[in-house]
Amino acid sequence: MKIVKGFCILFMLHLCLLDSGRTGKVLVWPVDFSHWINLQFILEELHLRGHEITVLVPSQNLLIDHTKVPYHVEILQLSVTEETFMEEFNSMLYEEIFELPKLSWWEMQIKLADLVRKFLLTNKRVCDSAITNKELLSRLQAAKFDVCIADPLSFCGELVAELLNIPFIFTFRFFYGNAIERLCAGLPMPSSYVPGVTSRLTDKMTFIQRLQNWLLYTVSDMIYSYYIFPEWDEYYSKVLGKPTTLCEIMGKADMWLFRSYWDFEFPQPYLPNTEFVGGLHCKPAKPLPKVLWRYTGKKPETLGANTRLYKWIPQNDLLGHPQTRAFITHCGTNGIYEAIYHGVPMVGIPMFGDQHDNLARMKAKEAAVEVDLQRMTSADLLNALKAVINNTSYKENAMKLSRIHHDQPVKPLDRAVFWVEFVMRHKGAKHLRPASHDLNWFQYHSLDVIGFLLACVATVAFLVTKCCLFCCWKFGKTAKKKKRE
Amino acid sequence: MKIVKGFCILFMLHLCLLDSGRTGKVLVWPVDFSHWINLQFILEELHLRGHEITVLVPSQNLLIDHTKVPYHVEILQLSVTEETFMEEFNSMLYEEIFELPKLSWWEMQIKLADLVRKFLLTNKRVCDSAITNKELLSRLQAAKFDVCIADPLSFCGELVAELLNIPFIFTFRFFYGNAIERLCAGLPMPSSYVPGVTSRLTDKMTFIQRLQNWLLYTVSDMIYSYYIFPEWDEYYSKVLGKPTTLCEIMGKADMWLFRSYWDFEFPQPYLPNTEFVGGLHCKPAKPLPKVLWRYTGKKPETLGANTRLYKWIPQNDLLGHPQTRAFITHCGTNGIYEAIYHGVPMVGIPMFGDQHDNLARMKAKEAAVEVDLQRMTSADLLNALKAVINNTSYKENAMKLSRIHHDQPVKPLDRAVFWVEFVMRHKGAKHLRPASHDLNWFQYHSLDVIGFLLACVATVAFLVTKCCLFCCWKFGKTAKKKKRE
Repeated sequence: MKIVKGFCILFMLHLCLLDSGRTGKVLVWPVDFSHWINLQFILEELHLRGHEITVLVPSQNLLIDHTKVPYHVEILQLSVTEETFMEEFNSMLYEEIFELPKLSWWEMQIKLADLVRKFLLTNKRVCDSAITNKELLSRLQAAKFDVCIADPLSFCGELVAELLNIPFIFTFRFFYGNAIERLCAGLPMPSSYVPGVTSRLTDKMTFIQRLQNWLLYTVSDMIYSYYIFPEWDEYYSKVLGKPTTLCEIMGKADMWLFRSYWDFEFPQPYLPNTEFVGGLHCKPAKPLPKVLWRYTGKKPETLGANTRLYKWIPQNDLLGHPQTRAFITHCGTNGIYEAIYHGVPMVGIPMFGDQHDNLARMKAKEAAVEVDLQRMTSADLLNALKAVINNTSYKENAMKLSRIHHDQPVKPLDRAVFWVEFVMRHKGAKHLRPASHDLNWFQYHSLDVIGFLLACVATVAFLVTKCCLFCCWKFGKTAKKKKRE
Repeated sequence: MKIVKGFCILFMLHLCLLDSGRTGKVLVWPVDFSHWINLQFILEELHLRGHEITVLVPSQNLLIDHTKVPYHVEILQLSVTEETFMEEFNSMLYEEIFELPKLSWWEMQIKLADLVRKFLLTNKRVCDSAITNKELLSRLQAAKFDVCIADPLSFCGELVAELLNIPFIFTFRFFYGNAIERLCAGLPMPSSYVPGVTSRLTDKMTFIQRLQNWLLYTVSDMIYSYYIFPEWDEYYSKVLGKPTTLCEIMGKADMWLFRSYWDFEFPQPYLPNTEFVGGLHCKPAKPLPKVLWRYTGKKPETLGANTRLYKWIPQNDLLGHPQTRAFITHCGTNGIYEAIYHGVPMVGIPMFGDQHDNLARMKAKEAAVEVDLQRMTSADLLNALKAVINNTSYKENAMKLSRIHHDQPVKPLDRAVFWVEFVMRHKGAKHLRPASHDLNWFQYHSLDVIGFLLACVATVAFLVTKCCLFCCWKFGKTAKKKKRE
């Protein structure tokens, strides 16, 4: 084999934005935190390509600084104070990081469902602020947007799009219990080899693990269908003035952009209206001046002379530095993708959300070692670091993931932007939407067909048995009669 | 919306074939007929890019003219004469076109299974010719191929690849009963909205149609699992000297290139190691001199003065001619894709194989009208032609499909070639292979998990009932005793 290295195919993206008259208008329903960091890369690219972007920003938020955003911004005024907002946020984070791990599996599912419900209800304030502002809605209506980009972790983007009668695209990493992916997007996720979010499992499971994953999906289905979604179904029905459900409206999404890819995620079934654009924020590293350490507290006295503290560091550039040997990470998707992009092995200290699952993927691909946040000692961290640095297989596996990431027909960001623009050009992408959305769950699984066939078989069996019994009785009677004669 | 037309993104393919040392070796296991016509476009492109191509060609075949093929050819010598070969071929074709439509649904499934089995057994001669030729095998082994491209409609390509220990890629349109797709590739195809091959159904089915499609899948599963595959399982086990199955070997494919896309096919779930490259053979039309009619028999006396007969016509150029108003087609995939590419509405007269299903797709997308081969009159054909020409909606819908076809991030042929080269560069694509291949069917569907849980529930229910009965009995006894006292 003489191909191997360097055989490069460059799919170069040539923009034919010959005049600005061919651009469109994009409405954005963002989610705070790392979601916003990631979304900005898509918006930046769309902005560069001349599209007009309007972002709906809640007045209280963590990372969406509307004074610095180079797009048009509509502030969604919340009555909550900054203190209450931060308190709520910190309390939820604390519970998920420190309280959840102390609970049993069943208690954890219930607690998690409660946290998700609480999180969604804080988002409902934002939704209310948008939906009840008739003046804002008519301004948005008048602007004639071509597409809405929404993050389904915070419900409502799809509702705004429905009210404005425009196509919409979802972009996100995951939803708890994979409830939105499975119940609303219609993604087939067999519990036998597609591990659910928060399961910490891999795609190769023992019987007990498959049992656990099946329970996770089933319990999640029940929690979301009967505890969390109903109040949203009611809310959506009220706002739209017709009986509907959250999933029905979400299921209208023209495209689902998932923030993963097969360098990171285990292979699983997907649909024509889903695209896996993980790592779209990654880019080649810029040169660094020296070794760095981001730290905002008081400088510890035991710190070695070769460690320097900085309030902020360019993580991507650091990971891309040729002397970077390992990455100690909390296992957020963005950070892990930067490590994959640059082929850096990891020491993972996951905290909440998908972070434990992200690490489970990197461990299964043998590119990371885990350290338990709740029980770690400095020796644990040191040993983990030594392992990923000294055992070359971690570096080799990280490089393998990096090669997979870099060897795609089209880069993730270009694919994301392509589909946003496709939906704008064609006013939707209905040809990609599976007909499963028109079926209910027992039709989807052919349970009515199987039930009908079983009923037929039972009827035939019943009739045959009856006939046989009748014949036996008749035959017996005749025989007796003959005998008597 | 100001984007609409002409907003073009050109993903230009730049080849960095700087020196010929970076090319690889490709082994090809082709299938005759239209499959070969289509496959040649991939081979041509690979050839242009400097790869060395070797095709295994049966000595008796219909369209693979090994004297004209610009690649290295290995002839697989068959003992059958050309007359016998043509007789067999024509008899199978005749039976499928003229005998099948006369049968009831159940008879048709059985007859079809028989025809498929017969077809596969004629292919087994080709397989035997390759496998038993030790000299050929060791020559192929010595050549150190990087990849094998095989068409699974004719089994054996995967067996040759397994013997040579090289990665392989499948490329095809469909297999009867979708048996290979579902049972070997592990493609999830819910019978509730993914119509099976030969069903002639669409993705929107009534209860009766879903019942029919469920039966089609179930009957196919049984036919292929118990009637057709077992002799191949045995053959493969014998050749490889270890117990194995056809599906186990086929399931090792690194990539499945399906000859369809969402301009043609109904949206359905798929897997990371599948790619939909339908229409890869289509290209812009070259200019035509005049109106044409391909016809090889005696010129009919009733033929109008404006109709001219030709022995061969460039179908693609004809379909791309701006004055082409409609396409009368037997509904082969290649022809339909040329019509989609150029946005030409169709009059379909399907004959066999996937042709009825292809037409069902075009009818569902309202770009075609059907004429029944068995019962057609000249008036039927005329009316159908008038309909697609005069009712502008057919042209509009054909143009819509054409726009979808042309608006892809990467062209189908480039995607097909990309993945062939990806597999060559990375010596496979194992990261795309779902873990479902390691599960048997009841594990896949979690039937063991559900069974276990039901058993647990039954045991608990049994124990609780027993305890209750025991308590009642005990309580009753004590009560009686007390009463007596």
